[in-house]
Amino acid sequence: MLDTLPFTLQGLRAAYGAGLDPRDVVAEVYRRIAAADDPGIFISLVPEDAARASAEALGRWDPARPLWGIPFAVKDNIDARGMETTAGCPAYAYTPEADAFAVAALREAGAILIGKTNLDQFAAGLVGVRTPWPVPRNAIDPEIVPGGSSAGSAVAVARGLVSFALGTDTAGSGRVPAALNNIVGLKPTLGAISTTGVVPACRTLDAVSIFALTVEDAAEVLACAARFDADDPYARPLAGPFLTPPPPVLRIGVPRAADLRFFGDAAAADGYETALQMLGREGAQLVPLPFSTFYETAEMLYRGAWVAERYAVIEDLLARDPEAVHPVTRGIIEGATSLSAADVFRDFYRLQALKRAAAETMRGVDMLCVPSIPTSYRVDEVLADPVALNSRLGTYTNFVNLLDMCGIAVPVAPLADGRPGSVTLLARAGHDAAVAGMAARLHARAGVPLGATGWTHPSDAAAPAATEAGLPPGHLAIAAVGAHMSGLPLNHELTGRGGRFLRTASTAPAYRLYALAGGPPKRPGLVRTGRGASIALEVWALPRESVGDFLAGIPSPLSIGTVSLADGTAVHGFLCESAGLNGAEDITRFGGWRAYCAATAQAVAS
Amino acid sequence: MLDTLPFTLQGLRAAYGAGLDPRDVVAEVYRRIAAADDPGIFISLVPEDAARASAEALGRWDPARPLWGIPFAVKDNIDARGMETTAGCPAYAYTPEADAFAVAALREAGAILIGKTNLDQFAAGLVGVRTPWPVPRNAIDPEIVPGGSSAGSAVAVARGLVSFALGTDTAGSGRVPAALNNIVGLKPTLGAISTTGVVPACRTLDAVSIFALTVEDAAEVLACAARFDADDPYARPLAGPFLTPPPPVLRIGVPRAADLRFFGDAAAADGYETALQMLGREGAQLVPLPFSTFYETAEMLYRGAWVAERYAVIEDLLARDPEAVHPVTRGIIEGATSLSAADVFRDFYRLQALKRAAAETMRGVDMLCVPSIPTSYRVDEVLADPVALNSRLGTYTNFVNLLDMCGIAVPVAPLADGRPGSVTLLARAGHDAAVAGMAARLHARAGVPLGATGWTHPSDAAAPAATEAGLPPGHLAIAAVGAHMSGLPLNHELTGRGGRFLRTASTAPAYRLYALAGGPPKRPGLVRTGRGASIALEVWALPRESVGDFLAGIPSPLSIGTVSLADGTAVHGFLCESAGLNGAEDITRFGGWRAYCAATAQAVAS
Repeated sequence: MLDTLPFTLQGLRAAYGAGLDPRDVVAEVYRRIAAADDPGIFISLVPEDAARASAEALGRWDPARPLWGIPFAVKDNIDARGMETTAGCPAYAYTPEADAFAVAALREAGAILIGKTNLDQFAAGLVGVRTPWPVPRNAIDPEIVPGGSSAGSAVAVARGLVSFALGTDTAGSGRVPAALNNIVGLKPTLGAISTTGVVPACRTLDAVSIFALTVEDAAEVLACAARFDADDPYARPLAGPFLTPPPPVLRIGVPRAADLRFFGDAAAADGYETALQMLGREGAQLVPLPFSTFYETAEMLYRGAWVAERYAVIEDLLARDPEAVHPVTRGIIEGATSLSAADVFRDFYRLQALKRAAAETMRGVDMLCVPSIPTSYRVDEVLADPVALNSRLGTYTNFVNLLDMCGIAVPVAPLADGRPGSVTLLARAGHDAAVAGMAARLHARAGVPLGATGWTHPSDAAAPAATEAGLPPGHLAIAAVGAHMSGLPLNHELTGRGGRFLRTASTAPAYRLYALAGGPPKRPGLVRTGRGASIALEVWALPRESVGDFLAGIPSPLSIGTVSLADGTAVHGFLCESAGLNGAEDITRFGGWRAYCAATAQAVAS
Repeated sequence: MLDTLPFTLQGLRAAYGAGLDPRDVVAEVYRRIAAADDPGIFISLVPEDAARASAEALGRWDPARPLWGIPFAVKDNIDARGMETTAGCPAYAYTPEADAFAVAALREAGAILIGKTNLDQFAAGLVGVRTPWPVPRNAIDPEIVPGGSSAGSAVAVARGLVSFALGTDTAGSGRVPAALNNIVGLKPTLGAISTTGVVPACRTLDAVSIFALTVEDAAEVLACAARFDADDPYARPLAGPFLTPPPPVLRIGVPRAADLRFFGDAAAADGYETALQMLGREGAQLVPLPFSTFYETAEMLYRGAWVAERYAVIEDLLARDPEAVHPVTRGIIEGATSLSAADVFRDFYRLQALKRAAAETMRGVDMLCVPSIPTSYRVDEVLADPVALNSRLGTYTNFVNLLDMCGIAVPVAPLADGRPGSVTLLARAGHDAAVAGMAARLHARAGVPLGATGWTHPSDAAAPAATEAGLPPGHLAIAAVGAHMSGLPLNHELTGRGGRFLRTASTAPAYRLYALAGGPPKRPGLVRTGRGASIALEVWALPRESVGDFLAGIPSPLSIGTVSLADGTAVHGFLCESAGLNGAEDITRFGGWRAYCAATAQAVAS
């Protein structure tokens, strides 16, 4: 039975709960690695007896260690104490005395390191073939490239050798190989996972990424790995939760038809269209967007200043032993020598303008959905044309870190030609949880087997609790009953703070509405009385970080509390203290503030 | 009388209110300019008849134009339509067809442009002598340098020729000349004032700055100039208010004694010490801090990558006509040619680490107070040793924009040698209003004449309305009456969101307190009844951006509204809906939740 045990977190936890010994899981990992018979996946393995010792050292099941007994691998540009870090280049190799910060965090959470995986040398590439080691075989279709640069990590997960693996992602190295191997690739917000102990590609743009069989697994790993590292100057705190259920209405930007790029791959185009239809069925409003700004940004990654970051990493090696560097990689990185210091700043200015333009493009949407890759290529095609085809694979990934976005590549239905289908959800930095929620929903609905394992998606885990209808992530729903409603004099206090109208609604029949003494302008007061009427209101979504400013301007006798709605739900909203009703007129019979104002010809906006 | 009229906003507004015609103010401006007899202040003047026409075009007093009839000048690296922009270099000059964004905003607010002022060429320098025009005479002591690079703008304001002037500030050009001429230099948060139409120095670090005679005036100008410019990729919105009164307790970081640098100027050291004592009398808690991180950052401005930004601005000119550039300036900027693209990124990495270290250093304080300049130099001293002495002047300014801080240089008592005294308050980006509030208080208390005018500080304007005692900038005061109080079970909902305890207090004698039905844990409900008692509570400060999260967790029947306190003030705080009192016990007689819990041996933390 062990040889068919799913290495999902759910699968392993169930088995551990039933008494399975983690030492037996370790043995099974090494059995699977041997059976996989692919010398391209790992550059080095933890000796089996050492891994077994790690399992033994875990002791008894410990609920405080969320990854207790979970086997994982890391890309070989990430340090593991006592093991060589090669970055895919033997001449560069060194043996670190300490784990990378992220590896230490995962071990502390109970995960068991199995080995270090093959990559496009120095993480430069999206193909997985720029390595002096054997090229890892794509887990789904051995003819096509495994994708890179985190090739071995993706294949190891897709083949069910380990439960998850770390990669790195600067240009798309955490998403492209996920797409090509039918697994999940989570590229968190920059700085969320420390890069201490990781060989840099572009230090200002590098993210540690997570490959897993399900989005839920990836989010759980992120929860353990995303610990703030005060020693990483680029670290930024990312607070949980790491997966929040998607609201019923989500606005998702997609490239407008004229801006879609598939390089002639009709199956890929159809697959993307099918995925969008599925998003639509999940209630997403698809918003076609011009994509020129994203493409222009993407082109800067290898043609602009940032190649000088890659050069800075291997400057000494290039001076000492240029032949040690993969010829394709060397050709790309040596481009940096023609850049001046002023050129770097000119590219920074251009990126800043592009960031502004991209923010403008994305202003009305909650996230983006793009194809993870525009098409796929065979190994022989890439070897014959190594730079151009690699560039094409980055069409939908290269702009992401430059624009400070987070994203998840998630499997969808296989394409008509049998190659894996994948889309990537992207959002502004810090919205990792919202992306994960939608990606989990999409993956569960897609119903595809996990990686190349044949295991099925534990989709019951993907049906999370409902929230206020249409509430965007990071917002608080607030019911307005008076001058804060649309078109009324105080509405700007909501809109000016990023508030969005969600819907009209009415209170449970348990309230009374008053026109308060004083003014102009007249203000209403809503009081729960138990016996009362349904009062019309508007539900608005206000970004949580703006609520403090908003509340600061709410005068006595008004407050923000909980308002019960006629549909049985409740939201936060305006209330009035009973003690504030001196001289107030009971206007409950009008059913709402607008009706009262209309009926009394009260100058609402006096 | 007109020749002694203070050109403060208050002075001019009073005169306008009494019937003064702005055309007469324009005439007085040009009379004062002629009387000042300093050909170094302005590079070009608006023709007097054109300025008079601008005054005439204002029409009648318009309260919608906050700067109606206020004369101002701008540094000659800022565009004014139809006037030459020289940046202090005749060979670079061009004539723009449009106003800089900030100039347009100020004119729209009713301000009248008078002229364009002299500067250290290309805004590179802190001395004011690196110009092919005559050196402006220091307004206080003609022997010492006027300071730069915004030399002419500072002198024009200090001599009362205009009410305010724009400068630019990359290394300290908006603060050093303010310090040397006994006026206020406001350097806002980067991006708060658009740089569209401004000749760049270091585009990633440039701020438009404001010189004025009082902090209040500078803040009012900022309120008009700080409009978000969607066409400036580096623009960031800065919301008002722009001056908030200082809380009674403010933690102010100062360089620890061993880290103070005055280069042997004992008078300057004494002056700084005196200013700190004054801060202490205003209730500031002075916190000595190590300053090595700030100094290390400061050194990078001219010795690191950023000089390549300056080079990018004049690369063409240097190729075409190198002799057109001031030899000192040229020597500095040509240093960029020895930097590689990789060097730029290495400096970025170093700055990122320094930013982290600086944030750590400043963690416990609300702002910093530093000497604006460590000492002052005579013109002949600077001409003899132009680079080293210039560098010293930037000791306390060069790090500010690199670390994304805002600040105001504000006059304090003159030094024992008669030279002007000045300190600079600095805070994290976005805290402009808090800095302005403290700077205004300090200036009012210092009681020094304004600039070189002999006019006195309209100090009654510097006593703003009281706010909640001890409330840090950007926080909301929230009164807790139950389990959110210190040591009680829900207190973590405040402390976990950065909440700080401010004080204990009690409500006005108009409330009743209830122990609500349900639980455990038991929860109290505070209801205003008009007839009631004083109820004990705690006032907490919660960062405004955390209020949304906090409020999201407040369940029915509780709300956050306004609570009147026994001392006659009011704060936001917990209230309970009257409708939520079913089954509740009136516990008003206990006077507070703690007393009730103690008396009833109720398990508070059940």
